[in-house]
Amino acid sequence: MFSQTVEYALRAVTHLAYMQPKLCSTSQLAKKTQVPPAYLSKVLQALVRAGIVHSQRGVGGGMTLITKADELAILDVVNAVDPLKRIHKCPLGLKAHGENLCPLHRNVDDAIGVLEEKFRNTTLADILAETGGSMPLCNSDSDPFIEPVPDSDN
Amino acid sequence: MFSQTVEYALRAVTHLAYMQPKLCSTSQLAKKTQVPPAYLSKVLQALVRAGIVHSQRGVGGGMTLITKADELAILDVVNAVDPLKRIHKCPLGLKAHGENLCPLHRNVDDAIGVLEEKFRNTTLADILAETGGSMPLCNSDSDPFIEPVPDSDN
Repeated sequence: MFSQTVEYALRAVTHLAYMQPKLCSTSQLAKKTQVPPAYLSKVLQALVRAGIVHSQRGVGGGMTLITKADELAILDVVNAVDPLKRIHKCPLGLKAHGENLCPLHRNVDDAIGVLEEKFRNTTLADILAETGGSMPLCNSDSDPFIEPVPDSDN
Repeated sequence: MFSQTVEYALRAVTHLAYMQPKLCSTSQLAKKTQVPPAYLSKVLQALVRAGIVHSQRGVGGGMTLITKADELAILDVVNAVDPLKRIHKCPLGLKAHGENLCPLHRNVDDAIGVLEEKFRNTTLADILAETGGSMPLCNSDSDPFIEPVPDSDN
């Protein structure tokens, strides 16, 4: 349904939001989000290209969110790495259909539209502000940055 | 979003519904649905395994729908070939979360749940009964089975 890439991108922006305004190295981010570093690098490149994340090179460099969490819709993150593809014209190329989708493709497109709307109206800040449950990526509610993360080199 | 496999499976069951109660050969189905035959065979195998399609071998054999169109939910077709995967427990394996999803994963799972509900409540018959638009897979409203289909060997 949602690709692994989307899942990893959401984890990355969540941890970067926790770390604000501090920079976060790719290796730290990989550890906290449990994403393979090479995979994470590609995800981050897509987030940088989309203007969501800034990457500062050199000693003391790292990643940081450009977009504020309350202005970053989940849809922005999804579309940066694995865009929701609406159906704009008949996938079979039937001339009689064109942009007037048949009921089959209109139903499928409607479903994608519902998701799009849901993710457009939910910001990262909305998610981080939800209470009554556990914190994303964190084993401890008291301090999200010191929780033990399973890691082979720990 | 939805895989090519889902798109192809929906086309296949749609054409089989049109053809009922006649059997339809894989090559005919491939032509009408514009799906590469080898790919279509795999999709059909999954639909057969799920008990949605019956495959009759031999001369005069072919495919037919087992499930009536008004009892075949779109969700059944989707789940037969590329199942919607709900999030049942923390994808990071965090002990403090377990089956109590954090707001991030609950939001993503809710979105999948919305889709699941929509597709559970829509049958193939619902789609075929929709009026006011074009017929799925067909260039002509008057006869869905004789429309010209773009094909390299035509």
